[in-house]
Amino acid sequence: MLGELIVFEGIEGSGKSTQAELLLQHLQGGDVPVSFAREPGGTILGERVRDILLDASGPRMSPRAELFLYLAARAQLIREFIAPKLENGERVILDRYVHSTIAYQGYGLRINLVGLDHAENVEAVTELCRQGVGEFWPDTVFLLDLPVEEGLKRLKGSPDRIERRDRAFHERVREGYLALAETEKGLFTVIDATLPIEEIAERVRVGFELA
Amino acid sequence: MLGELIVFEGIEGSGKSTQAELLLQHLQGGDVPVSFAREPGGTILGERVRDILLDASGPRMSPRAELFLYLAARAQLIREFIAPKLENGERVILDRYVHSTIAYQGYGLRINLVGLDHAENVEAVTELCRQGVGEFWPDTVFLLDLPVEEGLKRLKGSPDRIERRDRAFHERVREGYLALAETEKGLFTVIDATLPIEEIAERVRVGFELA
Repeated sequence: MLGELIVFEGIEGSGKSTQAELLLQHLQGGDVPVSFAREPGGTILGERVRDILLDASGPRMSPRAELFLYLAARAQLIREFIAPKLENGERVILDRYVHSTIAYQGYGLRINLVGLDHAENVEAVTELCRQGVGEFWPDTVFLLDLPVEEGLKRLKGSPDRIERRDRAFHERVREGYLALAETEKGLFTVIDATLPIEEIAERVRVGFELA
Repeated sequence: MLGELIVFEGIEGSGKSTQAELLLQHLQGGDVPVSFAREPGGTILGERVRDILLDASGPRMSPRAELFLYLAARAQLIREFIAPKLENGERVILDRYVHSTIAYQGYGLRINLVGLDHAENVEAVTELCRQGVGEFWPDTVFLLDLPVEEGLKRLKGSPDRIERRDRAFHERVREGYLALAETEKGLFTVIDATLPIEEIAERVRVGFELA
Protein backbone atom coordinates (compact mmCIF):
# COMPACT_ATOMS: atom_id res chain seq x y z
CA MET A 1 0.00 0.00 0.00
CA LEU A 2 1.56 3.30 -1.05
CA GLY A 3 -0.77 5.75 0.70
CA GLU A 4 -1.30 6.52 4.35
CA LEU A 5 -4.33 5.93 6.58
CA ILE A 6 -4.54 8.41 9.46
CA VAL A 7 -7.24 7.94 12.09
CA PHE A 8 -8.60 10.14 14.88
CA GLU A 9 -10.09 8.32 17.85
CA GLY A 10 -11.54 9.34 21.21
CA ILE A 11 -14.66 9.43 23.34
CA GLU A 12 -17.62 11.72 22.67
CA GLY A 13 -16.62 15.37 23.07
CA SER A 14 -12.89 14.73 22.67
CA GLY A 15 -12.60 17.08 19.69
CA LYS A 16 -11.62 14.40 17.15
CA SER A 17 -13.65 15.89 14.35
CA THR A 18 -12.16 19.35 14.87
CA GLN A 19 -8.62 17.98 14.87
CA ALA A 20 -9.24 15.78 11.84
CA GLU A 21 -10.45 18.88 10.00
CA LEU A 22 -7.39 20.90 11.11
CA LEU A 23 -4.97 18.21 9.95
CA LEU A 24 -6.84 17.98 6.68
CA GLN A 25 -6.44 21.74 6.15
CA HIS A 26 -2.76 21.50 7.10
CA LEU A 27 -2.07 18.73 4.60
CA GLN A 28 -4.16 20.17 1.79
CA GLY A 29 -2.11 21.89 -0.88
CA GLY A 30 0.87 19.60 -0.26
CA ASP A 31 2.29 17.24 -2.86
CA VAL A 32 0.24 14.26 -1.70
CA PRO A 33 -3.55 14.42 -2.22
CA VAL A 34 -5.44 14.07 1.05
CA SER A 35 -9.10 13.40 1.78
CA PHE A 36 -11.40 12.85 4.71
CA ALA A 37 -14.28 10.58 5.70
CA ARG A 38 -16.20 9.90 8.84
CA GLU A 39 -17.51 6.58 10.04
CA PRO A 40 -20.09 5.10 9.75
CA GLY A 41 -21.05 7.40 6.86
CA GLY A 42 -19.08 8.35 3.78
CA THR A 43 -20.98 6.14 1.34
CA ILE A 44 -24.67 5.82 0.47
CA LEU A 45 -24.76 2.44 2.21
CA GLY A 46 -22.91 3.87 5.20
CA GLU A 47 -25.27 6.82 5.57
CA ARG A 48 -28.23 4.45 5.54
CA VAL A 49 -26.53 2.32 8.18
CA ARG A 50 -25.73 5.45 10.18
CA ASP A 51 -29.42 6.38 10.24
CA ILE A 52 -30.26 2.96 11.67
CA LEU A 53 -27.48 3.19 14.29
CA LEU A 54 -28.30 6.67 15.55
CA ASP A 55 -32.05 6.19 15.63
CA ALA A 56 -32.99 6.35 19.30
CA SER A 57 -36.52 5.00 18.70
CA GLY A 58 -37.58 1.40 18.10
CA PRO A 59 -36.84 -1.76 20.12
CA ARG A 60 -33.49 -2.01 21.85
CA MET A 61 -30.72 -2.88 19.41
CA SER A 62 -28.84 -6.15 19.79
CA PRO A 63 -25.16 -5.42 20.60
CA ARG A 64 -24.21 -7.89 17.88
CA ALA A 65 -26.42 -6.10 15.36
CA GLU A 66 -24.75 -2.82 16.22
CA LEU A 67 -21.30 -4.35 15.81
CA PHE A 68 -22.10 -5.85 12.41
CA LEU A 69 -23.69 -2.63 11.15
CA TYR A 70 -20.49 -0.72 11.88
CA LEU A 71 -18.44 -3.40 10.13
CA ALA A 72 -20.73 -3.27 7.09
CA ALA A 73 -20.46 0.50 6.73
CA ARG A 74 -16.68 0.27 7.11
CA ALA A 75 -16.31 -2.44 4.47
CA GLN A 76 -18.21 -0.33 1.96
CA LEU A 77 -16.18 2.78 2.84
CA ILE A 78 -12.99 0.81 2.18
CA ARG A 79 -14.26 -0.39 -1.16
CA GLU A 80 -15.52 2.93 -2.48
CA PHE A 81 -13.20 5.41 -0.86
CA ILE A 82 -10.23 4.21 1.22
CA ALA A 83 -8.84 1.46 -1.02
CA PRO A 84 -8.78 3.44 -4.29
CA LYS A 85 -7.07 6.41 -2.63
CA LEU A 86 -4.45 4.43 -0.75
CA GLU A 87 -3.74 2.33 -3.82
CA ASN A 88 -3.17 5.62 -5.62
CA GLY A 89 -0.61 6.71 -3.01
CA GLU A 90 -2.90 9.28 -1.37
CA ARG A 91 -3.56 10.12 2.28
CA VAL A 92 -6.89 9.42 3.94
CA ILE A 93 -7.93 10.96 7.26
CA LEU A 94 -10.72 9.21 9.16
CA ASP A 95 -12.90 10.30 12.06
CA ARG A 96 -13.20 6.89 13.84
CA TYR A 97 -12.24 3.47 12.47
CA VAL A 98 -11.42 -0.03 13.78
CA HIS A 99 -10.32 1.07 17.25
CA SER A 100 -13.71 2.72 17.83
CA THR A 101 -15.31 -0.68 17.32
CA ILE A 102 -12.93 -2.40 19.72
CA ALA A 103 -13.30 0.39 22.31
CA TYR A 104 -17.09 0.82 22.06
CA GLN A 105 -18.33 -2.68 21.29
CA GLY A 106 -15.55 -4.68 22.94
CA TYR A 107 -14.71 -2.64 26.04
CA GLY A 108 -17.78 -0.38 26.34
CA LEU A 109 -20.66 -2.72 25.57
CA ARG A 110 -18.65 -5.79 26.67
CA ILE A 111 -20.18 -7.72 23.83
CA ASN A 112 -20.35 -11.48 24.38
CA LEU A 113 -19.20 -13.14 21.14
CA VAL A 114 -17.33 -16.20 22.31
CA GLY A 115 -18.22 -16.74 25.98
CA LEU A 116 -17.97 -14.99 29.29
CA ASP A 117 -14.28 -14.12 29.38
CA HIS A 118 -13.93 -10.37 28.79
CA ALA A 119 -10.39 -10.50 27.36
CA GLU A 120 -11.36 -13.28 24.93
CA ASN A 121 -14.34 -11.28 23.72
CA VAL A 122 -12.19 -8.18 23.15
CA GLU A 123 -9.79 -10.41 21.23
CA ALA A 124 -12.67 -11.79 19.14
CA VAL A 125 -13.89 -8.26 18.29
CA THR A 126 -10.34 -7.31 17.32
CA GLU A 127 -10.04 -10.36 15.07
CA LEU A 128 -13.40 -9.53 13.52
CA CYS A 129 -12.16 -6.00 12.82
CA ARG A 130 -9.04 -7.43 11.20
CA GLN A 131 -11.15 -9.69 8.98
CA GLY A 132 -13.48 -6.77 8.30
CA VAL A 133 -10.78 -4.45 6.94
CA GLY A 134 -8.31 -6.94 5.49
CA GLU A 135 -5.08 -5.13 4.63
CA PHE A 136 -6.48 -1.70 5.51
CA TRP A 137 -5.33 -1.41 9.13
CA PRO A 138 -4.48 2.21 10.09
CA ASP A 139 -0.94 3.54 9.67
CA THR A 140 -1.31 6.22 12.36
CA VAL A 141 -3.86 6.75 15.14
CA PHE A 142 -4.27 9.96 17.14
CA LEU A 143 -6.10 9.22 20.39
CA LEU A 144 -7.56 12.37 21.94
CA ASP A 145 -7.87 11.44 25.58
CA LEU A 146 -9.86 13.30 28.21
CA PRO A 147 -11.97 12.57 31.30
CA VAL A 148 -15.45 11.32 30.44
CA GLU A 149 -17.12 14.06 32.49
CA GLU A 150 -15.28 16.71 30.51
CA GLY A 151 -16.22 15.08 27.19
CA LEU A 152 -19.91 14.75 28.03
CA LYS A 153 -20.03 18.38 29.23
CA ARG A 154 -18.89 19.53 25.80
CA LEU A 155 -21.73 17.85 23.90
CA LYS A 156 -24.36 20.19 22.54
CA GLY A 157 -27.97 19.54 21.61
CA SER A 158 -30.10 16.50 22.33
CA PRO A 159 -28.06 13.32 22.78
CA ASP A 160 -28.34 10.46 20.28
CA ARG A 161 -28.72 6.81 21.23
CA ILE A 162 -25.01 6.29 21.85
CA GLU A 163 -24.39 9.49 23.77
CA ARG A 164 -27.26 8.67 26.12
CA ARG A 165 -25.49 5.55 27.39
CA ASP A 166 -24.48 5.69 31.01
CA ARG A 167 -21.32 7.21 32.39
CA ALA A 168 -19.77 3.82 33.27
CA PHE A 169 -20.04 2.81 29.60
CA HIS A 170 -18.05 5.85 28.48
CA GLU A 171 -15.48 5.19 31.22
CA ARG A 172 -14.96 1.67 29.88
CA VAL A 173 -14.56 3.05 26.37
CA ARG A 174 -11.89 5.49 27.54
CA GLU A 175 -10.01 2.77 29.43
CA GLY A 176 -10.30 0.53 26.37
CA TYR A 177 -8.75 3.16 24.12
CA LEU A 178 -5.84 3.61 26.53
CA ALA A 179 -5.30 -0.16 26.68
CA LEU A 180 -5.26 -0.34 22.88
CA ALA A 181 -2.75 2.52 22.68
CA GLU A 182 -0.55 0.56 25.06
CA THR A 183 -0.84 -2.64 22.99
CA GLU A 184 -0.16 -0.96 19.64
CA LYS A 185 2.39 1.57 20.83
CA GLY A 186 3.97 2.12 17.42
CA LEU A 187 0.62 3.05 15.89
CA PHE A 188 -0.79 5.42 18.51
CA THR A 189 -0.08 8.98 19.55
CA VAL A 190 -2.05 9.80 22.71
CA ILE A 191 -2.80 13.51 23.19
CA ASP A 192 -4.33 15.26 26.19
CA ALA A 193 -7.60 16.58 24.77
CA THR A 194 -8.08 19.11 27.57
CA LEU A 195 -5.32 21.24 26.02
CA PRO A 196 -6.22 24.25 23.87
CA ILE A 197 -7.29 23.34 20.32
CA GLU A 198 -4.23 24.95 18.69
CA GLU A 199 -1.85 23.15 21.06
CA ILE A 200 -3.48 19.80 20.21
CA ALA A 201 -3.28 20.60 16.51
CA GLU A 202 0.43 21.31 16.86
CA ARG A 203 1.01 17.98 18.62
CA VAL A 204 -0.91 16.22 15.87
CA ARG A 205 1.26 17.88 13.19
CA VAL A 206 4.44 16.93 15.05
CA GLY A 207 3.16 13.39 15.61
CA PHE A 208 2.31 13.13 11.93
CA GLU A 209 5.79 14.22 10.82
CA LEU A 210 7.38 11.65 13.17
CA ALA A 211 5.07 8.78 12.13
CA MET B 1 -33.06 -24.04 25.09
CA LEU B 2 -36.53 -25.59 25.31
CA GLY B 3 -37.96 -24.62 21.93
CA GLU B 4 -37.09 -25.73 18.42
CA LEU B 5 -35.54 -23.77 15.55
CA ILE B 6 -36.54 -25.16 12.14
CA VAL B 7 -34.93 -23.67 9.04
CA PHE B 8 -35.69 -23.94 5.31
CA GLU B 9 -32.74 -23.47 2.97
CA GLY B 10 -32.18 -23.67 -0.76
CA ILE B 11 -31.29 -21.73 -3.87
CA GLU B 12 -33.60 -19.18 -5.52
CA GLY B 13 -36.73 -20.86 -6.86
CA SER B 14 -36.40 -23.95 -4.65
CA GLY B 15 -39.81 -23.43 -3.04
CA LYS B 16 -38.49 -22.84 0.51
CA SER B 17 -41.03 -20.18 1.31
CA THR B 18 -43.95 -22.31 0.16
CA GLN B 19 -42.76 -25.27 2.21
CA ALA B 20 -42.09 -23.13 5.28
CA GLU B 21 -45.66 -21.85 5.02
CA LEU B 22 -47.06 -25.38 4.64
CA LEU B 23 -45.16 -26.65 7.69
CA LEU B 24 -46.34 -23.61 9.63
CA GLN B 25 -49.96 -24.42 8.74
CA HIS B 26 -49.40 -28.07 9.64
CA LEU B 27 -48.01 -27.23 13.08
CA GLN B 28 -50.48 -24.48 13.89
CA GLY B 29 -53.21 -25.57 16.24
CA GLY B 30 -50.91 -28.11 17.92
CA ASP B 31 -49.93 -27.96 21.58
CA VAL B 32 -46.71 -26.04 20.93
CA PRO B 33 -47.00 -22.46 19.65
CA VAL B 34 -45.25 -21.98 16.32
CA SER B 35 -44.27 -18.86 14.43
CA PHE B 36 -42.47 -17.84 11.28
CA ALA B 37 -39.93 -15.25 10.15
CA ARG B 38 -37.94 -14.65 7.03
CA GLU B 39 -34.39 -13.37 6.80
CA PRO B 40 -33.13 -10.67 6.53
CA GLY B 41 -36.45 -9.05 7.55
CA GLY B 42 -38.69 -9.79 10.52
CA THR B 43 -37.71 -6.72 12.56
CA ILE B 44 -37.74 -3.00 11.81
CA LEU B 45 -33.93 -3.01 11.69
CA GLY B 46 -33.96 -6.11 9.49
CA GLU B 47 -36.43 -4.63 7.02
CA ARG B 48 -34.25 -1.54 6.68
CA VAL B 49 -31.22 -3.76 6.12
CA ARG B 50 -33.20 -5.80 3.60
CA ASP B 51 -33.94 -2.65 1.60
CA ILE B 52 -30.22 -1.90 1.42
CA LEU B 53 -29.36 -5.47 0.40
CA LEU B 54 -31.93 -5.84 -2.34
CA ASP B 55 -31.40 -2.41 -3.84
CA ALA B 56 -29.94 -3.07 -7.27
CA SER B 57 -28.93 0.59 -7.78
CA GLY B 58 -25.93 2.40 -6.31
CA PRO B 59 -22.23 1.50 -6.38
CA ARG B 60 -21.31 -2.17 -6.22
CA MET B 61 -21.63 -3.55 -2.73
CA SER B 62 -18.54 -4.82 -0.93
CA PRO B 63 -18.90 -8.60 -0.28
CA ARG B 64 -17.86 -7.95 3.32
CA ALA B 65 -20.53 -5.24 3.70
CA GLU B 66 -23.13 -7.67 2.40
CA LEU B 67 -21.99 -10.35 4.84
CA PHE B 68 -22.09 -8.03 7.85
CA LEU B 69 -25.52 -6.65 6.90
CA TYR B 70 -26.98 -10.16 6.94
CA LEU B 71 -25.35 -10.86 10.30
CA ALA B 72 -26.73 -7.60 11.73
CA ALA B 73 -30.29 -8.34 10.63
CA ARG B 74 -30.00 -11.85 12.05
CA ALA B 75 -28.69 -10.69 15.42
CA GLN B 76 -31.66 -8.34 15.80
CA LEU B 77 -34.11 -11.06 14.72
CA ILE B 78 -32.68 -13.33 17.41
CA ARG B 79 -33.00 -10.66 20.06
CA GLU B 80 -36.54 -9.58 19.28
CA PHE B 81 -38.12 -12.74 17.98
CA ILE B 82 -36.20 -16.03 18.04
CA ALA B 83 -34.71 -15.94 21.54
CA PRO B 84 -37.90 -15.02 23.44
CA LYS B 85 -39.90 -17.72 21.65
CA LEU B 86 -37.34 -20.50 22.03
CA GLU B 87 -36.79 -19.59 25.68
CA ASN B 88 -40.55 -19.94 26.07
CA GLY B 89 -40.44 -23.46 24.62
CA GLU B 90 -42.02 -22.49 21.30
CA ARG B 91 -41.20 -23.48 17.73
CA VAL B 92 -39.79 -21.02 15.21
CA ILE B 93 -39.73 -21.67 11.44
CA LEU B 94 -37.28 -19.60 9.41
CA ASP B 95 -36.96 -18.97 5.68
CA ARG B 96 -33.14 -18.81 5.46
CA TYR B 97 -30.65 -18.55 8.34
CA VAL B 98 -26.95 -19.21 9.01
CA HIS B 99 -26.47 -21.77 6.25
CA SER B 100 -27.63 -19.23 3.66
CA THR B 101 -24.76 -16.99 4.72
CA ILE B 102 -22.23 -19.80 4.48
CA ALA B 103 -23.59 -20.97 1.11
CA TYR B 104 -24.03 -17.51 -0.49
CA GLN B 105 -21.17 -15.49 0.99
CA GLY B 106 -18.72 -18.32 1.64
CA TYR B 107 -19.25 -20.66 -1.32
CA GLY B 108 -21.10 -18.38 -3.77
CA LEU B 109 -19.26 -15.08 -3.47
CA ARG B 110 -16.04 -16.80 -2.26
CA ILE B 111 -15.52 -13.96 0.14
CA ASN B 112 -11.89 -13.39 1.10
CA LEU B 113 -11.80 -12.86 4.87
CA VAL B 114 -8.57 -14.49 5.93
CA GLY B 115 -6.50 -15.03 2.77
CA LEU B 116 -6.66 -16.88 -0.49
CA ASP B 117 -7.46 -20.39 0.69
CA HIS B 118 -11.12 -21.12 -0.14
CA ALA B 119 -11.66 -23.73 2.59
CA GLU B 120 -10.19 -21.41 5.24
CA ASN B 121 -12.46 -18.59 4.14
CA VAL B 122 -15.53 -20.82 4.31
CA GLU B 123 -14.39 -21.87 7.79
CA ALA B 124 -14.00 -18.18 8.79
CA VAL B 125 -17.53 -17.36 7.55
CA THR B 126 -18.86 -20.34 9.49
CA GLU B 127 -17.07 -19.20 12.66
CA LEU B 128 -18.44 -15.69 12.13
CA CYS B 129 -21.95 -17.15 11.84
CA ARG B 130 -21.41 -19.07 15.07
CA GLN B 131 -20.30 -15.92 16.86
CA GLY B 132 -23.17 -14.03 15.25
CA VAL B 133 -25.92 -16.32 16.57
CA GLY B 134 -24.33 -17.55 19.80
CA GLU B 135 -26.38 -20.42 21.20
CA PHE B 136 -29.07 -20.11 18.51
CA TRP B 137 -27.81 -22.62 15.95
CA PRO B 138 -30.67 -24.40 14.12
CA ASP B 139 -32.11 -27.64 15.45
CA THR B 140 -33.36 -28.83 12.05
CA VAL B 141 -32.60 -27.73 8.49
CA PHE B 142 -34.62 -28.70 5.42
CA LEU B 143 -32.54 -28.23 2.29
CA LEU B 144 -34.69 -28.06 -0.84
CA ASP B 145 -32.28 -29.07 -3.56
CA LEU B 146 -32.78 -28.65 -7.28
CA PRO B 147 -30.77 -27.86 -10.42
CA VAL B 148 -29.93 -24.16 -10.74
CA GLU B 149 -31.51 -23.94 -14.18
CA GLU B 150 -34.77 -25.26 -12.83
CA GLY B 151 -34.72 -22.80 -9.92
CA LEU B 152 -34.00 -19.77 -12.08
CA LYS B 153 -36.76 -20.76 -14.51
CA ARG B 154 -39.30 -20.63 -11.70
CA LEU B 155 -38.56 -17.02 -10.73
CA LYS B 156 -41.21 -14.51 -11.68
CA GLY B 157 -40.96 -10.78 -12.22
CA SER B 158 -37.86 -8.63 -12.53
CA PRO B 159 -34.83 -10.10 -10.78
CA ASP B 160 -33.32 -8.36 -7.71
CA ARG B 161 -29.61 -7.76 -7.20
CA ILE B 162 -28.94 -11.26 -5.89
CA GLU B 163 -31.02 -13.13 -8.46
CA ARG B 164 -29.18 -11.33 -11.28
CA ARG B 165 -25.85 -12.87 -10.31
CA ASP B 166 -24.45 -15.26 -12.85
CA ARG B 167 -25.28 -18.90 -13.21
CA ALA B 168 -21.88 -20.07 -11.92
CA PHE B 169 -22.54 -18.20 -8.67
CA HIS B 170 -25.80 -20.07 -8.12
CA GLU B 171 -24.07 -23.36 -8.96
CA ARG B 172 -21.47 -22.70 -6.25
CA VAL B 173 -24.25 -21.91 -3.79
CA ARG B 174 -25.98 -25.19 -4.55
CA GLU B 175 -22.75 -27.17 -4.18
CA GLY B 176 -22.05 -25.31 -0.94
CA TYR B 177 -25.42 -26.27 0.50
CA LEU B 178 -24.83 -29.91 -0.38
CA ALA B 179 -21.38 -29.82 1.23
CA LEU B 180 -22.85 -28.32 4.40
CA ALA B 181 -25.56 -30.98 4.51
CA GLU B 182 -22.81 -33.59 4.30
CA THR B 183 -20.80 -31.96 7.13
CA GLU B 184 -23.77 -31.52 9.47
CA LYS B 185 -25.60 -34.72 8.61
CA GLY B 186 -27.57 -34.88 11.86
CA LEU B 187 -29.03 -31.42 11.27
CA PHE B 188 -30.01 -31.61 7.59
CA THR B 189 -32.80 -33.27 5.66
CA VAL B 190 -32.14 -32.90 1.92
CA ILE B 191 -35.27 -33.04 -0.23
CA ASP B 192 -35.54 -33.16 -4.02
CA ALA B 193 -37.27 -29.86 -4.81
CA THR B 194 -38.34 -30.98 -8.29
CA LEU B 195 -40.97 -33.23 -6.68
CA PRO B 196 -44.61 -32.06 -6.53
CA ILE B 197 -45.30 -29.56 -3.74
CA GLU B 198 -47.50 -31.95 -1.74
CA GLU B 199 -44.88 -34.71 -1.94
CA ILE B 200 -42.20 -32.34 -0.62
CA ALA B 201 -44.52 -31.18 2.16
CA GLU B 202 -45.08 -34.79 3.17
CA ARG B 203 -41.34 -35.44 3.32
CA VAL B 204 -40.89 -32.31 5.43
CA ARG B 205 -43.57 -33.50 7.87
CA VAL B 206 -41.97 -36.94 8.11
CA GLY B 207 -38.52 -35.38 8.52
CA PHE B 208 -39.84 -33.13 11.24
CA GLU B 209 -41.37 -36.02 13.18
CA LEU B 210 -38.08 -37.95 12.98
CA ALA B 211 -35.89 -34.95 13.97
